[in-house]
Amino acid sequence: MNNTVKHLVDPNDFTLEEINRVIDLGLNIQQNPSQYARLCEGKILGTLFYEPSTRTRLSFESAMLRLGGKVLGFSDANTSAVKKGESLADTVRVLDDYCDALVMRHPMEGAPKLASEYATVPVINGGDGGHQHPTQTLTDLITIKKYKGQISNLKIAICGDLLFGRTVHSLLKTLSRFENISFYLISPPELKIPRHLKDYLLDSYNISISEFTDLEDCIEDADILYMTRIQKERFLNEEEYIRLRDSYILTRDKLSEAKTNLMVLHPLPRNNEIHYDVDEDPRAKYFEQAAFGVYVRMALISFLLEVADHA
Amino acid sequence: MNNTVKHLVDPNDFTLEEINRVIDLGLNIQQNPSQYARLCEGKILGTLFYEPSTRTRLSFESAMLRLGGKVLGFSDANTSAVKKGESLADTVRVLDDYCDALVMRHPMEGAPKLASEYATVPVINGGDGGHQHPTQTLTDLITIKKYKGQISNLKIAICGDLLFGRTVHSLLKTLSRFENISFYLISPPELKIPRHLKDYLLDSYNISISEFTDLEDCIEDADILYMTRIQKERFLNEEEYIRLRDSYILTRDKLSEAKTNLMVLHPLPRNNEIHYDVDEDPRAKYFEQAAFGVYVRMALISFLLEVADHA
Amino acid sequence: MNNTVKHLVDPNDFTLEEINRVIDLGLNIQQNPSQYARLCEGKILGTLFYEPSTRTRLSFESAMLRLGGKVLGFSDANTSAVKKGESLADTVRVLDDYCDALVMRHPMEGAPKLASEYATVPVINGGDGGHQHPTQTLTDLITIKKYKGQISNLKIAICGDLLFGRTVHSLLKTLSRFENISFYLISPPELKIPRHLKDYLLDSYNISISEFTDLEDCIEDADILYMTRIQKERFLNEEEYIRLRDSYILTRDKLSEAKTNLMVLHPLPRNNEIHYDVDEDPRAKYFEQAAFGVYVRMALISFLLEVADHA
Repeated sequence: MNNTVKHLVDPNDFTLEEINRVIDLGLNIQQNPSQYARLCEGKILGTLFYEPSTRTRLSFESAMLRLGGKVLGFSDANTSAVKKGESLADTVRVLDDYCDALVMRHPMEGAPKLASEYATVPVINGGDGGHQHPTQTLTDLITIKKYKGQISNLKIAICGDLLFGRTVHSLLKTLSRFENISFYLISPPELKIPRHLKDYLLDSYNISISEFTDLEDCIEDADILYMTRIQKERFLNEEEYIRLRDSYILTRDKLSEAKTNLMVLHPLPRNNEIHYDVDEDPRAKYFEQAAFGVYVRMALISFLLEVADHA
Repeated sequence: MNNTVKHLVDPNDFTLEEINRVIDLGLNIQQNPSQYARLCEGKILGTLFYEPSTRTRLSFESAMLRLGGKVLGFSDANTSAVKKGESLADTVRVLDDYCDALVMRHPMEGAPKLASEYATVPVINGGDGGHQHPTQTLTDLITIKKYKGQISNLKIAICGDLLFGRTVHSLLKTLSRFENISFYLISPPELKIPRHLKDYLLDSYNISISEFTDLEDCIEDADILYMTRIQKERFLNEEEYIRLRDSYILTRDKLSEAKTNLMVLHPLPRNNEIHYDVDEDPRAKYFEQAAFGVYVRMALISFLLEVADHA
Repeated sequence: MNNTVKHLVDPNDFTLEEINRVIDLGLNIQQNPSQYARLCEGKILGTLFYEPSTRTRLSFESAMLRLGGKVLGFSDANTSAVKKGESLADTVRVLDDYCDALVMRHPMEGAPKLASEYATVPVINGGDGGHQHPTQTLTDLITIKKYKGQISNLKIAICGDLLFGRTVHSLLKTLSRFENISFYLISPPELKIPRHLKDYLLDSYNISISEFTDLEDCIEDADILYMTRIQKERFLNEEEYIRLRDSYILTRDKLSEAKTNLMVLHPLPRNNEIHYDVDEDPRAKYFEQAAFGVYVRMALISFLLEVADHA
């Protein structure tokens, strides 16, 4: 029975057709929310957050509640059975009896994958270490679809920490599956995308990759500019962090070189990668992006619980 | 659009007419709870507690659930995006997409005010540092209205820490707006109300203020005795705390001097400001007061979400 | 009024007839969950967890949500009013206004009993120190009833830490009230059941108790084998823990000596008391047991809220 349950651990768990289906459903939910307000009545989503992530957790909770469902879980490993030395497999085998789907955030790469092998209910990866963060990718895609009308024939600039950023790796792998995508990758030399990932993408997909160390060198040509945070916790020492942090910052000045229909995205939270005065620019779509994160998660939950067709 | 949204950050955000409307609605809810049990169906309240406050948080949660609404949030800054260095403005701009109203508790004065400037949904101040705590004030007022029939022509004794206690300052400022109020303020000399607050009240309103250092000197004349906790965390050293803590304690003995229709209130939690044997006295209304805190918050949420008229 | 409210603090608070009623209701709920999906609509369960226990807390939350009710509470004493020095009695007198029933987990023995003396709503003991854990006992009983058809005429082996384990003491006391029960108690000499408990059981009930230091000496004769975790936190030093931990482990080898209709139970979480390869054996029922924990808690909540007959 277990192997007929659908999970989302890695973006590649979904076919392109499935990804499009979830995105289109999310766009439809955003247009007609009341039509979906009772879709998950009587269903429970379990949120197993082994590391804190307010934003991701609350966006899932909001999604489930807006579908008429309910939520239980924990937001911190300190309050969990982990402390008693229980295996993750055992925890999942118990908690899957308490709910109808599970979202797991875990500091250890592969934990959600392991969970999906034991769970009798759908498991959604809410981020595992530096590995995958597929619902952030779905959030990015639905926002692109909303404002660009399609996810193809796009020149996508991605700026910041491309070495450690899990949202970037998930996004790159998934965008590469769409048609006619060109990437402009902008980062300090120390934080370029991993060599193996670059090789994998070029070998597997019909994409192009250009690398830059300066945002100004490619901003005027981009359709989308995806800014990312340089996460302090990924650095080994503070000086290195402070030196690099300020290198890749979007300002109104830099933005003046860009296309008028550029779309600026950011997975948030930001530190200072985007100046506050950019927020006023109509090209800034990162807060809209956060809002679409709820709609696409509503779509995802409905899809995995197989209730999407009952709306 | 933002500036048409109604917030409650400071008690003065509401006109006296609005305060009365919320209180009367709360009293009506208490009489006919089932009539209001679905008023907020499909709505979500976000509880952003940057410092723990079980009592305030749970009274809001209970209020929203009893209105048929749902709740999400966090109860501790450690599980929040704060740790990633995000600005409060950004947090609010994201979280207001996840819910229909926000309650914020924050150790920093002014944080809820700032939040209300960015939020697209109503923001309720659940307490900000030593500053304001307007829903405690509404709780106090609804209890007075319930048991005294009106909030006017009252002699109100307030005893304890009048220097740091935010509940007291909010209460003083709001009660002063009602008709014919006399205050008896009882405190150690070190913990008298701030001079600027006293001047402001006397200049702005038609009230009288008498100050005492001994509870026994005015208890027999009061209609209401509002006891407050001397908060350990407000003192710089433990000895000072221990010396003052025991000075202003209500006992059955002291109560024997009071009017038979006196009403004793306390915002709770108490330490030892009120002896346990006072609990049996019919004049003790502090537990009823806590219960009315839920009804008045139900009224407030309904009012801010503009669903109050649909009951 | 208070004394007409029904609580579950100690398994002995319920008559045998009441225990059977709750168990049978739980079995019926498991068969027809949709019939009970709205039984607690409009009701709120408060979860007051003064020490973390993800499993117990979430099983209660799942139970209440599956009954159509709602949940509020805290999962950690750090976020509670405790820190402000408030008495438990005061906390309960306030929080019972926020909800329709309370579950309390507390590190201090007797805390839920005290709470039940002040609460105006039903109080359920979710575990108090090394004392009682009555809903685990109900979970054990419903699982036995489900798979054995009755709770009588059984030879029940209980293995592990019998000195400190609160689940074992609750279980022993309650099983003794059923007909024709024989206990095989297997433990290291240092962790035998307390003398006073053994004397009490033999004096009060028509049972037999045989004690063993080796699991192999009685496994072939048992109808039920109840394994327990040796809790690290109960030991004074680590070496003692490590020496004993490995002594009482169930393996496939040992299981090969047992009856084919043996039922292996465990309150979970386990460390290594049961080898993972035992999980595949059809006699392993501990994960089913965890699932039945939700059904019996649904039954218990319905019973205490007096809505059970409205299904």
